[in-house]
Amino acid sequence: MIKVKVIASGRCKEEWLRMALAEYEKRLSPFLEITWIHPKDDAQLADLLPQEQQYIALDPNGDSMGSLEFSQKLLKYFENNRSRATFAIGGPDGFSPDILQKSTLRWSLSPLTFTHQLTRLILLEQIYRAMEISKKSPYHK
Amino acid sequence: MIKVKVIASGRCKEEWLRMALAEYEKRLSPFLEITWIHPKDDAQLADLLPQEQQYIALDPNGDSMGSLEFSQKLLKYFENNRSRATFAIGGPDGFSPDILQKSTLRWSLSPLTFTHQLTRLILLEQIYRAMEISKKSPYHK
Repeated sequence: MIKVKVIASGRCKEEWLRMALAEYEKRLSPFLEITWIHPKDDAQLADLLPQEQQYIALDPNGDSMGSLEFSQKLLKYFENNRSRATFAIGGPDGFSPDILQKSTLRWSLSPLTFTHQLTRLILLEQIYRAMEISKKSPYHK
Repeated sequence: MIKVKVIASGRCKEEWLRMALAEYEKRLSPFLEITWIHPKDDAQLADLLPQEQQYIALDPNGDSMGSLEFSQKLLKYFENNRSRATFAIGGPDGFSPDILQKSTLRWSLSPLTFTHQLTRLILLEQIYRAMEISKKSPYHK
């Protein structure tokens, strides 16, 4: 079983978002397990991250890529990290240079700014898409 | 009142998406009215678009921009088009060259591929963000 950890500040208050995330977690559940860590603020998030052996920082100034390239990168990442990946979603002020420097990959979802809530959903949909691409399913065409 | 039309193939089946779209429509409702047009397929969408005086095509090969730039472009767009904007969300095969050529603007949300469902939500959140940016509210920071 692949294990993905998502570290994102703040609780998920919106009912629609809980439903959407649950839907993608369910679809992923046969082969991938998601663990959510919700530090209460960005300072606590910055304390938690150095405990991770590896993490991908979602960062507006990071590498941007298409879904196909992300799928390949993520699968390779699982191979190289014993089927583990940690994603960190920063607050409105982004990550400190130190946090960014220690990340394994800095990934920009889009030049647009999204809410943290929407970022969580986009991330999960892209992980699901990445797995479907690797299975050559018709989900991604 | 600003009027925005969104032309997107297929019905919105997911309950969470209906809730999320309703939330952003409600937030926008004091100053902006959204009309949804759901052609049954891409062929019907291609028939409808030429009836629009102007439209913005959401296209993976279109211009990409940050939320600030989009806000400025959208506000200018409303000024130049009597407070009207039409957005077209294409199917998995994208738009025909003819449809793209006649569009007022080709806009790429991200190099990533999203579902049509998620595209609708991202679009609405960006329109809301654009309005909040123009009001200098703390929503976008």
